[in-house]
Amino acid sequence: MTEPLAPGATIGILGGGQLGRMLSVAASRLGFRTHIYEPGALPPAGDVAHLVTTAPYEDSDALFAFATNVDVVTYEFENIPTLTLDALEDHTPIRPGREALRVSQDRLVEKEFLQGLGLQTAPFADVPDMAALATALPQIDTPGILKTRRFGYDGKGQARIMEVGDAEAALAEMQGAPAILEGFVDFSHEVSVIAARGLDGAVACFDPGENVHKDGILHTTTVPARLSAGQRTDAVLLAANILNALDYVGVLGVELFVTPQGLIVNEIAPRVHNSGHWTQNGCVVDQFEQHIRAIAGWPLGDGKRHADVVMENLIGDDMDRVPDLAKDPATALHLYGKAEARAGRKMGHVNRIVG
Amino acid sequence: MTEPLAPGATIGILGGGQLGRMLSVAASRLGFRTHIYEPGALPPAGDVAHLVTTAPYEDSDALFAFATNVDVVTYEFENIPTLTLDALEDHTPIRPGREALRVSQDRLVEKEFLQGLGLQTAPFADVPDMAALATALPQIDTPGILKTRRFGYDGKGQARIMEVGDAEAALAEMQGAPAILEGFVDFSHEVSVIAARGLDGAVACFDPGENVHKDGILHTTTVPARLSAGQRTDAVLLAANILNALDYVGVLGVELFVTPQGLIVNEIAPRVHNSGHWTQNGCVVDQFEQHIRAIAGWPLGDGKRHADVVMENLIGDDMDRVPDLAKDPATALHLYGKAEARAGRKMGHVNRIVG
Repeated sequence: MTEPLAPGATIGILGGGQLGRMLSVAASRLGFRTHIYEPGALPPAGDVAHLVTTAPYEDSDALFAFATNVDVVTYEFENIPTLTLDALEDHTPIRPGREALRVSQDRLVEKEFLQGLGLQTAPFADVPDMAALATALPQIDTPGILKTRRFGYDGKGQARIMEVGDAEAALAEMQGAPAILEGFVDFSHEVSVIAARGLDGAVACFDPGENVHKDGILHTTTVPARLSAGQRTDAVLLAANILNALDYVGVLGVELFVTPQGLIVNEIAPRVHNSGHWTQNGCVVDQFEQHIRAIAGWPLGDGKRHADVVMENLIGDDMDRVPDLAKDPATALHLYGKAEARAGRKMGHVNRIVG
Repeated sequence: MTEPLAPGATIGILGGGQLGRMLSVAASRLGFRTHIYEPGALPPAGDVAHLVTTAPYEDSDALFAFATNVDVVTYEFENIPTLTLDALEDHTPIRPGREALRVSQDRLVEKEFLQGLGLQTAPFADVPDMAALATALPQIDTPGILKTRRFGYDGKGQARIMEVGDAEAALAEMQGAPAILEGFVDFSHEVSVIAARGLDGAVACFDPGENVHKDGILHTTTVPARLSAGQRTDAVLLAANILNALDYVGVLGVELFVTPQGLIVNEIAPRVHNSGHWTQNGCVVDQFEQHIRAIAGWPLGDGKRHADVVMENLIGDDMDRVPDLAKDPATALHLYGKAEARAGRKMGHVNRIVG
């Protein structure tokens, strides 16, 4: 399929969390239907989707039925099992494509890919076992951070090594999973670029946002970010570099450390990204619609920002603040419809218009 | 129920067209689920709702099941049968309340209500039959327009009387339905005020929009409207007057003729309104979220406008223009997911940011 999808077509989304939910709403704005595939019961995205399949990612019958009911498949998370993708790809296009998933599913592969493009990353070493860790530590130096190569998110699967004596305990935390050791980067702040590439190869970037994390989870994103004109250009060029190298179709999030030595790529996410939620109230076409436009073969929005925005995540019992937040006329609420406000769980976000 | 609805609650919506669809999306943003009740199969709102009941408005079992599954009922159209409301109201609050429906369902009652508030309307006369029409014509003068008292929309159920000789044919077009004769109003342009009133009695108005109709259907709404400061104040005050008189909860659309003699009320609609669609891209809280906030007992948004917008409806084969419209970076597309682009059918709209 290289023709643009016509309104009325069905977009399949793997994963029914808040990103799938907001993708589904954006798809509806363009006249598309969505079909959510999600193993968990009552997914947040199901409240705003035409169809929901509740089945494991290994259920080949359910996958076949899903694939043959949709016109294109996309996803809200990168850790999709290879077998799931194998089962889908004979029947329907998968966008962004599998190369983006292969690269971003594995921190080691991702870092090697980025360095291959001439981009800066944190110093890193492959750590399959204790012997490798012992060899790596003097190269990378402490403090460092041990991370599982796969399946990490929101600070999960990570252990700090402040001094050499922490190494064994840190490796134990990996629970036998292959890991990499990353050196700390001395950065002044973190920014991210939400970039998109269309089916025709056109690239459009949103203005970089500045991220602040709390307890390993994104707390706020502020646009505009503190960046020089040169840094801003660098950020956009490197994002385009990554998109083109992956022959990417869709929205990609690129997290960058700002350092005196230039921008260092922290990680990439082949999907809409929490640090792009501000676009919902700052742009005519937000990151969710941009992603849908890209995977549907439509023209991209230009990413132009019409307001200064501070996005703040509502985590766990931040939900208690909703009645007060609802009173502020400059605050746009975006709640995810999750029943239980567990600690550390992303329940919603607000976009505050500040200028 | 006078406490604010908590996120996770379910909002029932009578009618599954595009207004129900956009209400459903707005409800999801505040963490609510929606349950659509609609006699027609595959309603546009069903694509973005948690539940859909497909049943006639006279099905008391289906109505009971619906009413007991939701926390509040609202609607996207005013012509809801009285029996439907009777069946619902013992089980769940209906917002806006029945008085607003009683008044707005009947052009005669509506005009008498508006005049009772001291507001100006077009000259009118009750026309139950030909004898009444013969009496009314000299009072109202030609040209005039004969309209069915009930169930008219988008120019349907209307017939012009340019001269006395047209009277009989015009009455025949009413097909025996009770009608009123309205005199023409000599107005320079039409504007509408989208106003909201909360459960606490607070009132908030969006900036008036200027409407242009084509073939009896709204074509464009432009904000800001051409109004003097005094007219703007009058428009807001009269909308508040109407809302308070009805003890209204929700969003109400008020169509006004601008004349040298002041603002003349054309009609009111007890629901979100086509001429308020511009708010989706011009305000932090749009008319759909404003309505949901009101009926959920939440604080209202303040209605502040942050952009100049031209809303244009996409009717019938305007859908052929979608590929071109999608290329314009200042244009936000809103499509309704309707399968068949029949002539005169509202298929979507665009909001063009013009400043």
